[in-house]
Amino acid sequence: MAQRYVRVQNQEGQIYYGLLQLSLTVQVLDAPPWLQGQPTDLILEPDNYQILAPCAPSKIVAVGKNYADHAAEMESEVPIEPLLFFKPPTSVIASLAEIQYPYQSQRVDYEGELALVIGDRAIDCTAEEAQTKIWGYTIANDVTARDLQRKDGQWTRAKGFDTFCPLGPWIVRELSPGARLQTFLNESATPVQSATIDQMVFSPDFLVSYISKIMTLLPGDVVLTGTPVGVGALTIGDRIRVEIEGIGRLENKVVAREKLAR
Amino acid sequence: MAQRYVRVQNQEGQIYYGLLQLSLTVQVLDAPPWLQGQPTDLILEPDNYQILAPCAPSKIVAVGKNYADHAAEMESEVPIEPLLFFKPPTSVIASLAEIQYPYQSQRVDYEGELALVIGDRAIDCTAEEAQTKIWGYTIANDVTARDLQRKDGQWTRAKGFDTFCPLGPWIVRELSPGARLQTFLNESATPVQSATIDQMVFSPDFLVSYISKIMTLLPGDVVLTGTPVGVGALTIGDRIRVEIEGIGRLENKVVAREKLAR
Repeated sequence: MAQRYVRVQNQEGQIYYGLLQLSLTVQVLDAPPWLQGQPTDLILEPDNYQILAPCAPSKIVAVGKNYADHAAEMESEVPIEPLLFFKPPTSVIASLAEIQYPYQSQRVDYEGELALVIGDRAIDCTAEEAQTKIWGYTIANDVTARDLQRKDGQWTRAKGFDTFCPLGPWIVRELSPGARLQTFLNESATPVQSATIDQMVFSPDFLVSYISKIMTLLPGDVVLTGTPVGVGALTIGDRIRVEIEGIGRLENKVVAREKLAR
Repeated sequence: MAQRYVRVQNQEGQIYYGLLQLSLTVQVLDAPPWLQGQPTDLILEPDNYQILAPCAPSKIVAVGKNYADHAAEMESEVPIEPLLFFKPPTSVIASLAEIQYPYQSQRVDYEGELALVIGDRAIDCTAEEAQTKIWGYTIANDVTARDLQRKDGQWTRAKGFDTFCPLGPWIVRELSPGARLQTFLNESATPVQSATIDQMVFSPDFLVSYISKIMTLLPGDVVLTGTPVGVGALTIGDRIRVEIEGIGRLENKVVAREKLAR
């Protein structure tokens, strides 16, 4: 099995990057692995840590309509250039954390996606250079308030709510180009989304190159590569699971967002 | 004169928050002032520091069409709810730093704006609570590639280029509701934009409350409150200056972005 790079919090609230062992212990690194973090002697037992999203991006750049069949289901065409939007860092949650269904929306959708983790400062890169800036791969759910997306025009609110970017559970360095992404709703064994990564309109290298000509990508930043056909509604109480072959499973439960909760 | 809160870098590259004295020396604080930073014995002489943007936001939430006469000049109506978008942290530059004119655009506009600096975690706030979360005020230029804004639909690229968010030069704690914002292009003494802050459609308190019901605002985050009528084009070589009464002047020069520069 490929090495799994995690970010965890211990019971005292300290945050570490680490290597997840098959025994589920975590060998702590002295820095993020993309900043040449090296293994330390500190080992965390499974009962002594909680898994976090595997990186803490300074920005999350996402791409809309990057699978032709999803663009079609949105009654839209594939864009000529990548269609970019942001999700704020405050939207990121870990695998097994709860997606909060906002009281402002009556229609919240899942969108399973491959996420790229940037390892090195990327500015004005060619596609070839961009390839070297992608440190690894993880899984994302680009949760979207579909009604607000249609109403607002700009997607900021629809895609920007707290908890709307489940990310994880860990990062791997390599991904097969034909790796399959599948999304499962609740107990059903039939996926609601199923596509291979190579069905993307704009490849990961192209996307990172394109973005780097607009804005500098920093180590730990995340690029979401778009969702395939099959997006659909979530309901409070649902469990939604996105799987990518060779990475793992990102699973989250949907709960109601309490008004004026603090 | 009101206390001016700055963020500076010394010649060794160390970054400090501080108080700018009338003598232009900086008294260094031991933390950001909104995190209860206290004065230290370290004083930086004017030759020994460079001014940075006055905070390092984890996110910048901006509002479109928040002055009726600007909405009209965009041939648009004032929205019923605030129209939100993001600018990435990589777009922030200090006063006197250079705005890079991207080779992808043929029409880049200035947009002078009041910026709010958040001092305290804000989630699901009423407007009254929101008021207590605004730590201070500074000036922003929401630089926009107008042609790409029209072309892309989403404003991410048009407003997200590196250097497209001049911010500063410093933060003040108080602002008169009738304070005037004026933008000056090059040597002209006639402003291209001139409006008072109280002409906003949605007030600062309302905006912070509205945003906090979507996404948590963190200390040091920035809210841009929209631009008044009079937006217009920048040309390479231009100097653009945004002034707000009681804060100061934010001035930046426009240069060409070099292709494949590193």
